[in-house]
Order: sequence, then C-alpha cells, then structure tokens
Amino acid sequence: MNISELTANHAQWLNGAEDRHGIVVSCRARLARNLSALPFAPKATVEDQEQVIEQVLTAAQRGHLMNSASFFRMDALRENERRLLVERHLVSPALAESKGQRGLLFSRDESLSIMINEEDHLRLQAILPGLQAENAWAAVNALDDELGASVAYAHSDKWGFLTACPTNVGTGLRLSILIHLPALVLTEDMERVTRGLTEMAFTVRGFYGEGTHPVGNLFQVSNQSTLGVEEDRIVEKLTAITQQIIACEKDAQDALLKEARAQVEDKVWRAYGLLSHARVLSSQEFMNLLSAVRLGYSLDLLKQLDSAFMNRLMIVTQPSHLQMENGGEIAAEERDIYRAERVRSHFATLASEESGQS
Amino acid sequence: MNISELTANHAQWLNGAEDRHGIVVSCRARLARNLSALPFAPKATVEDQEQVIEQVLTAAQRGHLMNSASFFRMDALRENERRLLVERHLVSPALAESKGQRGLLFSRDESLSIMINEEDHLRLQAILPGLQAENAWAAVNALDDELGASVAYAHSDKWGFLTACPTNVGTGLRLSILIHLPALVLTEDMERVTRGLTEMAFTVRGFYGEGTHPVGNLFQVSNQSTLGVEEDRIVEKLTAITQQIIACEKDAQDALLKEARAQVEDKVWRAYGLLSHARVLSSQEFMNLLSAVRLGYSLDLLKQLDSAFMNRLMIVTQPSHLQMENGGEIAAEERDIYRAERVRSHFATLASEESGQS
Repeated sequence: MNISELTANHAQWLNGAEDRHGIVVSCRARLARNLSALPFAPKATVEDQEQVIEQVLTAAQRGHLMNSASFFRMDALRENERRLLVERHLVSPALAESKGQRGLLFSRDESLSIMINEEDHLRLQAILPGLQAENAWAAVNALDDELGASVAYAHSDKWGFLTACPTNVGTGLRLSILIHLPALVLTEDMERVTRGLTEMAFTVRGFYGEGTHPVGNLFQVSNQSTLGVEEDRIVEKLTAITQQIIACEKDAQDALLKEARAQVEDKVWRAYGLLSHARVLSSQEFMNLLSAVRLGYSLDLLKQLDSAFMNRLMIVTQPSHLQMENGGEIAAEERDIYRAERVRSHFATLASEESGQS
Repeated sequence: MNISELTANHAQWLNGAEDRHGIVVSCRARLARNLSALPFAPKATVEDQEQVIEQVLTAAQRGHLMNSASFFRMDALRENERRLLVERHLVSPALAESKGQRGLLFSRDESLSIMINEEDHLRLQAILPGLQAENAWAAVNALDDELGASVAYAHSDKWGFLTACPTNVGTGLRLSILIHLPALVLTEDMERVTRGLTEMAFTVRGFYGEGTHPVGNLFQVSNQSTLGVEEDRIVEKLTAITQQIIACEKDAQDALLKEARAQVEDKVWRAYGLLSHARVLSSQEFMNLLSAVRLGYSLDLLKQLDSAFMNRLMIVTQPSHLQMENGGEIAAEERDIYRAERVRSHFATLASEESGQS
C-alpha cells in the first residue's frame, strides 16, 4: 500500500463493532519482544538494526498472518508521513521521532502491526473495535507464535520475555482500551476513577498514549505490570474493570439526562450544529464537539450517525491526514479552515437530522 | 382583530421591502398631538381620558384610513397582552405600563397606529419597512390631516403643536429608523458614529426605544428636536444621514470580509448552525446569533433566508409572543426551550443550506 492511500483506508478498529453504548472505541494488545541473537536497542548498531529488520521481515513472510502486509521504512518517510502513522495508531510517537533504521509492518485492515526497532526490537500490536480484549490478545498471541517459529526471542526462565525497559519484562503484554467518558468528566468523577484504577495497577492516559493529555474526553486505560501476571488474567481483569467503568459512565450519563435533559440535548445539538456549519475548526475544539456528539449518540439522542462515522472522522481530521489529503504543507490557520471543510462534507452525507423529530 | 391572532399577523414593516442591504429594518414617523378642549395627560381625570378616547375613535371612524382598524383598551388587557403590543412596536412601554384609561387603534397591516392617552392625548405612528422616511412621514401626515378634520388640536401660532413635554413641541414629529450595524460595532466605530449623530441633533437608542439597551446590534436613530425645523427638512436630513450610516456600515462589512473572510464566514455559519440546532436559547443569545446571520445576509454569504424571515422571527421569539403562542404562562427556563423550538421550526422551513456550495 502506498502511504497516501492510507488516508482513505478504513481501519478495522474504527468500525464501531462491539461498541454497544458508543463508549469503548477500541481495544489494543501489544507485546514487547527482542531477538536473542542481537544487542538490545540501546546498544544496537545500524547493522544490528538492519539485521533485526531483515529477520523480522523474513519471519513474517514465512507465516500467513502478515505475508501480504505493507512495510514502511520509517527513515525513508517524510516527517508528515511518519506523523500520519502515529495519527492512525500504527506507530508510537517514539518510533516516528527516533533515529536509526526502523520500520513498520501492518496488515491491510490495520488490525495487526509490528513496529521494528522501537524501544524493543519488536512491538507486536493487535487493535480491534470495541471491548474485545480477549480477541485482541488472541490475535497478537497468534502473530507472536508465528514469528516465534522463525526467530529466537530473548527469554529467561525466571523473568519471562526480556525487554529493554524492566516495566515490560515478563509477558511483555500491554492491553489497553480507548474509552470515551464525557459524563464522568462532566460530573468531575474522573479523578476518583483514575485513582481507583491506579490502585488496581492500571494506568489512565490520553488519546495518544504516554505523556499525552486527554482530549475530547477520550482516555486510554491499560495494565501497568507485565510481570508475574498471566496474560489471560490481564485480559480478564481489564475486561471486568472496563465493564465497571462503562457502567459508571452509563449511570452518570443517565443521571445527567434525567436531571438536565434540555441542557444535555442543547449541548449535543449545538455541537452537531457547529460541526456541520463551522468554517474554522481547531483540532481541540473539534475533539470537544465530537465528544458532545458522541455523548448524544450514547444517549440515543442522535440517530443519524454511528461510531464508525465519528471514529473515522476523528482520525482523518488530524493534522497530518489533512496535510496528506491536501497534497502539501498547510499553515496552521489554513488547516483549521480545511478541517472545517472536511468535517462539513462528512456531515453533509448524513440524513437530515430534523426528519422524524418533534 | 383578536389579540391572540396578532402573533400570526404579518406586520408590513417586517417584510423587508426597500432594504437593499439588509441593514435598515424599518422607518417610523410619529406625531404627538393633544386635543385643545381637554386637559393634558398629567392633569386629565378618568372622565377626561374617556372623552379623549371617544373623540379619537369617532374621528377615526369618520375618516377612511382607520375606519376598519382594531381597537384595544389597554386597561382591559392582561399584562402579557400589553407586552405583546410593545414587542410588535405598536405601543410604547410607557403606554403598556401606565395606569388610567388608554387605548390603541391600529390598521390591519400594523403600518398605522394611534396610541391614546400616552404622554400626549394622541401619538400617531406610521411604520414602514426599509428606509422610507418620506413615505412614513406622508402616511402619518395623512392620518393627522384626517383626524384634524374632526378634532381640534392644541396649537399655538408661535410654538406650533403643543405637547405634554416641551421636547415634542412644534411639529411633534419624531422620525426614526431601526438599523442593524454589526460591523460598526465589531470595529468599535459605533461610539464615534453615535457621537457624530448626537452633534447633529440625532439620538441613538436601543431596539425598544428610550432607555433600552441595544441588543443584537440593532439601533434606533431619530431626530432630537421637533421645534423650528420643518417636517420635510427632518425627513431629508434623516434620510441623508441614514444613507451615510449605511455606507459606513457597508464599508466596514466589506473590509471585515476582505481582511478575515474565513473568520466572518465562520461567525455567520456558526450562528446559523446554532439557531437551527440549539435546544435552549435565551433572548439575548438569540438576538446576537440573529445579528450574525443578518450580517451573513448583508454580505451575501447566506442566500436561503431574507429580511422578512429574520424580522418576523425576531418578533415572534419575544417573551410575550412565546407565551401567547403557548397559551399560558411559561417559566423563564421553559421559555428558552420553547424559543429554541420555535426558532428551529422556522429554520427547518428553509432550503438546505449546503446545496450549491463548495
């Protein structure tokens, strides 16, 4: 696949499946792995990095899961192209910004991907729509098995899989969900929820992972420890905890609607009106308005759009996607105009919102 | 006419005629008159007031301009009904709120009206759409002549027509235009314009006349002195000055569009989006959003609505109109919900705004 085709590609994890309430966007399972025969990233030479790439590509081609996958050498991409991959959640900001020989291998539907020469030699990722922790884990596990049949991983009987950073040692599994919690933010309960999760060894982060701020009331919840806990147990625990968070959010949403229906409806429909009419839209404002519209969807107030519509819009309105679509560099101010245009043209495809209303 | 029918009545002055730029809403000519045979308002007894009403009604019936007019006794109306007449610019707040026997006579198209026992025995009013000072003056002059054929006005050869307040002595003519000046407000030139007008003996007031604040960038400009200036001269001067203000506003609008097209378009379309989607709308916010939409109309950015649409909406969304439509008292909070509903249903009648756009 050519990188410019990616903007129009429909990533599977954005399709809104298994997302009954419009609350859990996606679920991601990631494994950290290193090749035993080569020095870990901090000590790897350019030649070592090339070796890693070669071995991984060979192993991938031998299996069937990734044998028709696309491969990009990060060092051959322009900055905007690398950022585009970050916006699609295919690579981490770290892989996009680091130096050296590094690459990305990913399946056509973007559900499976491998970052090569990030913090570890390999970061395997499976990402699926909705709360599908078990399926995501199964998918990344299958990919791991397939590669493991061709390459020797760094592994210790005592510690499990060895990784560049001790926080990933053991299973090397990080499971995370991307979840929309507007009512818990509005009722100022998010801090309490975050505290509770931290106590249970889960972390809460922003939309683009570690070190990023939450935007548009989207949070990433993931397990903290990868050592001494079996994979199935992590899957089970994250699923149970996510179901609890969904229940809390749903309760808070219902209470809001009960206590202040007109104000909630007003917030939702104003956001809809602005998204479908504004001529200038900053990324931040867009995400906040989209959050209000998503809340409307969760509350069944809006029936003319669905999760897939909102999820895809959220990605294609990111700066590098806009730039790629436009075919060249856009000034920040022009970008907000262009974003508004793109959003408007998406909304124009929806059925008239007034039909069937009082 | 029954007062409840008024909410659906299409007042002629709101029809947007003679309003090329969407800037001048309407033009009003008002004459202050008193009957020579009866004490002026401050000294009038209830019997005197009844006499005034009787003589005016008799005189009106003799002529042809007002012989099929509607008559309301203000003291027989409920508070909300009196306020409804204020909202339609048929009576002054003073007439609505004062005590004693007082009334309103008005033509079916609301272009001609007579307030009886306001500050003066008679206040004759002609109100027309757009900048039609000459026609408004001619209309109220004809009404004055017709009544003057049946009743004797208090008049002095030295001073002209005598009035309760010396500021109205002389011709008794007050001519005023209702004008929308969003760009002059935005560029902070309105203070300078007001100062200039004051120096030329014109006053600038809010939407509902003396003592009211401007809302939605609507201003009333009127002549200050009625003494020692001939009526034709007042008409001429106000017309010339209004044309100057229109030119200033138009220049400011064009400059805004030239300097910040995207921001102006954004402001206009956001207002459109909010008016057509909000579920709660205060009167103040509504007027501000309508002002932005009107600016869009002036600038030819919006083609799916016209002055008549905006002018009528501006009146029917006033509190007493909403209450009358609803058939009973509405709490302030409910009123904002009901206003949003009314506005939305009006906007729903418009052609889709996205058609024919880039």
